[in-house]
Amino acid sequence: MNLIDGKKISEIIQLELADEVKQFVAKGNRAPHLAAVLVGNDGGSVTYVNAKVKACERIGFKSTLVHLDEKITEAELLATVSKLNDDSSIDGFIVQLPLPKHINEQKIIEAVDPKKDVDGFHPSNVGRMALNLPCYLPATPYGIIQLLERNKIETSGKHCVVIGRSHIVGSPMSILLARNAYPGNCTVTLVHSRTPDISKFTRDADIIVVAIGKPHFLKAEMVKEGVVVIDVGTTRVDAPETKNGWRLLGDVKFDEVAPKCSWITPVPGGVGPMTITGLLQNTLLAAKKSIY
Amino acid sequence: MNLIDGKKISEIIQLELADEVKQFVAKGNRAPHLAAVLVGNDGGSVTYVNAKVKACERIGFKSTLVHLDEKITEAELLATVSKLNDDSSIDGFIVQLPLPKHINEQKIIEAVDPKKDVDGFHPSNVGRMALNLPCYLPATPYGIIQLLERNKIETSGKHCVVIGRSHIVGSPMSILLARNAYPGNCTVTLVHSRTPDISKFTRDADIIVVAIGKPHFLKAEMVKEGVVVIDVGTTRVDAPETKNGWRLLGDVKFDEVAPKCSWITPVPGGVGPMTITGLLQNTLLAAKKSIY
Repeated sequence: MNLIDGKKISEIIQLELADEVKQFVAKGNRAPHLAAVLVGNDGGSVTYVNAKVKACERIGFKSTLVHLDEKITEAELLATVSKLNDDSSIDGFIVQLPLPKHINEQKIIEAVDPKKDVDGFHPSNVGRMALNLPCYLPATPYGIIQLLERNKIETSGKHCVVIGRSHIVGSPMSILLARNAYPGNCTVTLVHSRTPDISKFTRDADIIVVAIGKPHFLKAEMVKEGVVVIDVGTTRVDAPETKNGWRLLGDVKFDEVAPKCSWITPVPGGVGPMTITGLLQNTLLAAKKSIY
Repeated sequence: MNLIDGKKISEIIQLELADEVKQFVAKGNRAPHLAAVLVGNDGGSVTYVNAKVKACERIGFKSTLVHLDEKITEAELLATVSKLNDDSSIDGFIVQLPLPKHINEQKIIEAVDPKKDVDGFHPSNVGRMALNLPCYLPATPYGIIQLLERNKIETSGKHCVVIGRSHIVGSPMSILLARNAYPGNCTVTLVHSRTPDISKFTRDADIIVVAIGKPHFLKAEMVKEGVVVIDVGTTRVDAPETKNGWRLLGDVKFDEVAPKCSWITPVPGGVGPMTITGLLQNTLLAAKKSIY
């Protein structure tokens, strides 16, 4: 069994990014600039946004945090988005989700200029992904693709089962792994809540991507020997014995599944760390105008 | 075995459309107006475009054929597209593919205003489809969805195997049938040229959509009893005994597969007739501003 060390790969990519930024700036360009819009004070969102801002600083990006009151109206938020779209000193920006309930999330997502949509959530970027055109890939799928690539894991002709059809992980993963590319060229089966017998499919899989948000869902008897397992689950559970008072559980019963795997991602330290890295990579692409 | 009669369903939908158009116009609106851009004189393209124009007339749409010389430059074609985008008397338009080789097809597709993109080829419409948002569905997948719907074929929880990953049929079908909708909620497996053993998947399938362009590819031993088979293949082969000198072959060896099926589309008269109908439906949606 080989561990897919997302923490280490993420660190390596971020070092490479820092180097690229240095060269980019040395050529007379200003540093890439990411803005993050945070509405309200949801604990998880504040943590995520701070981590993103910190990562920017670490690798030499400029970052701007736009922190708005929870009571902001949809029209005011749209005006902020429009300002960021027009601000030529900003290469890319994200609006941290979820938003307060009185704001239509989809409307905000579609208001972001696709050229600055480094989260890859705008329909135009999603469509470009499906059509195998240059685009910003959503951060988590982008991270998973790179975990496979950096570990030189064979994907062509393999049967990949993706568990969960969310718009931010499962559905894009199923599209990306079926593309005529590397990583890709998999036979892809997308299973979900309406699949009567998920085990029937996972037992046949060479590669499994689990993104269903149910801790310890994937068990040893559901996989075959030699499988590659990518665990996207990150459910917080109380853990009074830890410093934070909680810990992360993946969607895979790691202890019993890992011995059967050729490759497996741990939780934490697998897919998670790659997400911010994907966002940083998209921002550099935006600064370099590589996509649009 | 039940035949999925695409010709008849297509006729019924077109009668319904004609009725809707009458009501729409009676309310004081002008008739829906589809424009078709044809570049050059490719035999197949001329036939398709003429059939589309004729169908428009039949159901009370206005149609305009913009026939351009094969030697037109990309810039000139882009100017035509831009004019059609701005022409408020036109609700939707298509640029018939393929285009001559000196023109970048993707560039033309992306120049079409998504609001008038009744072919559903623009990345923005493709992305909206993947995100389950209102959009123009590409005509062939739209037609297949309606064949399932009009015959009340159960799809939820079924294993659907889509053969072929083209951007206009296979890939969108795999996305549509996995969505949380009816028809949809299938466990979807997308198989293609890099799948080592396609039979292994088709033998397990409750529903098979074949869009691989290989005449008689799907044979009896590749399917199980009771399967639903949708044949998207339309390969022209010489047939001196026919009036046209050719006939259409599907991707399914119909004579031997049909007896095992609960439902099957014939070729011709299955998926084919639904394609123009899907385009007409999209044009009416555009005229009514139902999507955008």
